[in-house]
Amino acid sequence: MLGARRLLGALRLCSSVSCPRPRATAKLRVRDALGVQDASGECVTVQGWIRSVRSQKEVLFLHVNDGSSLESLQVVADSSFDSRELAFGSSVQVQGQLVKSQSKRQNVELKAEKIEVVGTCEAKAFPIKYKERHPLEYLRQYPHLRCRTNALGSILRVRSEATAAIHSYFKDNGFMHIHTPVLTSNDCEGAGELFQVEPSSKIKVPEENFFDVPAFLTVSGQLHLEVMSGAFTQVFTFGPTFRAENSQSRRHLAEFYMVEAEVSFVESLQDLMQVMEGLFKATTEMVLSHCPEDVELCHQFIASGQKWGVDLQTEHEKYLVRHCGNIPVFVINYPSELKPFYMRENEDDPQNTVAAVDLLVPGVGELFGGSLREERYHVLEQRLARSGLTKAYQWYLDLRKFGSVPHGGFGMGFERYLQCILGVDNIKDVIPFPRFTHSCLL
Amino acid sequence: MLGARRLLGALRLCSSVSCPRPRATAKLRVRDALGVQDASGECVTVQGWIRSVRSQKEVLFLHVNDGSSLESLQVVADSSFDSRELAFGSSVQVQGQLVKSQSKRQNVELKAEKIEVVGTCEAKAFPIKYKERHPLEYLRQYPHLRCRTNALGSILRVRSEATAAIHSYFKDNGFMHIHTPVLTSNDCEGAGELFQVEPSSKIKVPEENFFDVPAFLTVSGQLHLEVMSGAFTQVFTFGPTFRAENSQSRRHLAEFYMVEAEVSFVESLQDLMQVMEGLFKATTEMVLSHCPEDVELCHQFIASGQKWGVDLQTEHEKYLVRHCGNIPVFVINYPSELKPFYMRENEDDPQNTVAAVDLLVPGVGELFGGSLREERYHVLEQRLARSGLTKAYQWYLDLRKFGSVPHGGFGMGFERYLQCILGVDNIKDVIPFPRFTHSCLL
Repeated sequence: MLGARRLLGALRLCSSVSCPRPRATAKLRVRDALGVQDASGECVTVQGWIRSVRSQKEVLFLHVNDGSSLESLQVVADSSFDSRELAFGSSVQVQGQLVKSQSKRQNVELKAEKIEVVGTCEAKAFPIKYKERHPLEYLRQYPHLRCRTNALGSILRVRSEATAAIHSYFKDNGFMHIHTPVLTSNDCEGAGELFQVEPSSKIKVPEENFFDVPAFLTVSGQLHLEVMSGAFTQVFTFGPTFRAENSQSRRHLAEFYMVEAEVSFVESLQDLMQVMEGLFKATTEMVLSHCPEDVELCHQFIASGQKWGVDLQTEHEKYLVRHCGNIPVFVINYPSELKPFYMRENEDDPQNTVAAVDLLVPGVGELFGGSLREERYHVLEQRLARSGLTKAYQWYLDLRKFGSVPHGGFGMGFERYLQCILGVDNIKDVIPFPRFTHSCLL
Repeated sequence: MLGARRLLGALRLCSSVSCPRPRATAKLRVRDALGVQDASGECVTVQGWIRSVRSQKEVLFLHVNDGSSLESLQVVADSSFDSRELAFGSSVQVQGQLVKSQSKRQNVELKAEKIEVVGTCEAKAFPIKYKERHPLEYLRQYPHLRCRTNALGSILRVRSEATAAIHSYFKDNGFMHIHTPVLTSNDCEGAGELFQVEPSSKIKVPEENFFDVPAFLTVSGQLHLEVMSGAFTQVFTFGPTFRAENSQSRRHLAEFYMVEAEVSFVESLQDLMQVMEGLFKATTEMVLSHCPEDVELCHQFIASGQKWGVDLQTEHEKYLVRHCGNIPVFVINYPSELKPFYMRENEDDPQNTVAAVDLLVPGVGELFGGSLREERYHVLEQRLARSGLTKAYQWYLDLRKFGSVPHGGFGMGFERYLQCILGVDNIKDVIPFPRFTHSCLL
């Protein structure tokens, strides 16, 4: 076997960059062009899509956006460049000199020397219209085009930034990343709301499961993380989870993302709450410092008043949050019979509570849910027996037989987090391709 | 709506850490304890699982591992601490003084003052035996316990490190992260090997799809990334993909991870090859510098000789790689009729090739596959018509109507990457919970 070092050495030797083509001018992303301090005529090339065109007698102004930032780069050109193809939505490549702008609205602008229309845009057929602020509901009809608007651009940049921040937070705090499986044969926890998976009917062998057992889409990576927390003291996962919930509410998706963490050797719910809080703060601080203008756009043009779900439970949550001054609120120690078998029983007879914790936030409701897990073999054994799950969860009980440790963890709904910090009312607008009852476009 | 800043402020005010419990001694991860320079009796607490016990007349040696590194921390205790419960696999909490070790085998050791057995381990029932090096095939029977071995520990640490490195590489190079959907209504590309999804039979409404259309598990995020590359010039995704392939080979899984990227305004395959190469190098360098001892363990105890698949195609690949001196090899410009409709046709009549690129590596075969995409409306229209896909891919054609740009991208099989750098023969050993024909454990 080739060693990794030799592989790397080999790759260096046979680098594909051995014959770089000469580039006339530096290619710059719009974000980087906008960030140039004291521009003084540098020759650059910028590529992107036209967001606006303003034609004056002798000058033509274009705004070019490439998705790297909300702000576009102003291109100033001689009016001789004007053409019908230089229109909203067209893709262009502009070569010119980066200079200090005379206007106060931007630092720099690009004095065009060459403008090339790369791809034209059929204005009539294009569902996104120049200078119009389309409602998010309207844009949902065009999942393949809506990312070309300012609103979705900002939301998706924040989503990307938050994703990176979450990975960083866990890495910086010594957590190991685990890819928990999407396909699972556990079917008990999610009960009635599971999706089942089979090879497509075209190749389905009748009367036989592909996996020999029924397979479902995961509703949570928790149990698999618990497996890992028997060897690694801090683990996390960040992946898709699924519910076949027949709901088109603004708070539910059939496919959504969860951030889940599990910590070994915890002593109390406080240990978990510190991680939850650290995660929320670190992620939000990173988003605010890396894309403040995207957050600003959402708050200015998208965020609506506080709307809450209408079911009773959500109303309770709303009351609690309001009662505490409209700030995030931790709720702990729930009645045992309301919660699943794996939550650790508190020693508080006769109240019979379990060590569970939820974090409720204004506008969204439950953002985090977590608990200590029952690590005591005999207590867990009894609870499984009571629920008739002993056989299915023998492997889970096994984990408590070999060096069991007190542990606990939590999950955070990633889309709800984005709704919370951006004030976006409908969950379908904070995920690139929303899936819900009656809808699986593209 | 509460602004994000106010939320953050609010969270600060009502911090859950307001009444921290006093900690007698600093809690240290094993990795951090091992890294202490010039230890001089610091009072620390270490928690983990016992990997070995050596009892001498007056001294007891324990090795405690918490998954933060391959190496364990040596604990030296008075033999009065000896007990039957201090055995391989038990979880312990040890308090003591961190001191310079007298032995050359480690820098520091922990002089125990207090040892608490947190959870015992039933040695007889534990399938992992003390001092035995179990074959990976044996461990595969115990997906809930195998992470407690050195071998899987190392592989999973490398997997976690590589995951972080991939996110960093893309972020550092200006790529935006996109969560492409797992559920999709596209059914054409993967043809016979798709998994189909329906609500579990318990709640299935007969004669009606949950999504109104048949829904499948994704085989690639490419087409959805292409949607995004019409607004953002560099995007990537890193998530699970699925094939209902009836294969138990050492190279195939039903659920596996792909890293996929898409770049707008590319000029040639070279532009893509540079990203592919950069990704491979940056990730491998990060893994080598952050967990050299884990890589070393794999190469020393796990890596087998070069085994290749037995199908003819793989034999061709093997020949090519060997012909080039057993180094990674880029293969470009494939015959058009072998490749899917979206690949860009080269202007090389009558050869009729498309701008596709594969990266073949020793031991694994195809690691990357990529191509330029057909961005020319009329060419794509014809190819879709020829394949009878015009209707299903109208939205995809649409992308070329509104500011189309030359673009291209690639996918890298993440498990194959790990096999490649670690020399692990069977793909089932580089993923936490392998899913394949007849097997979906836990």
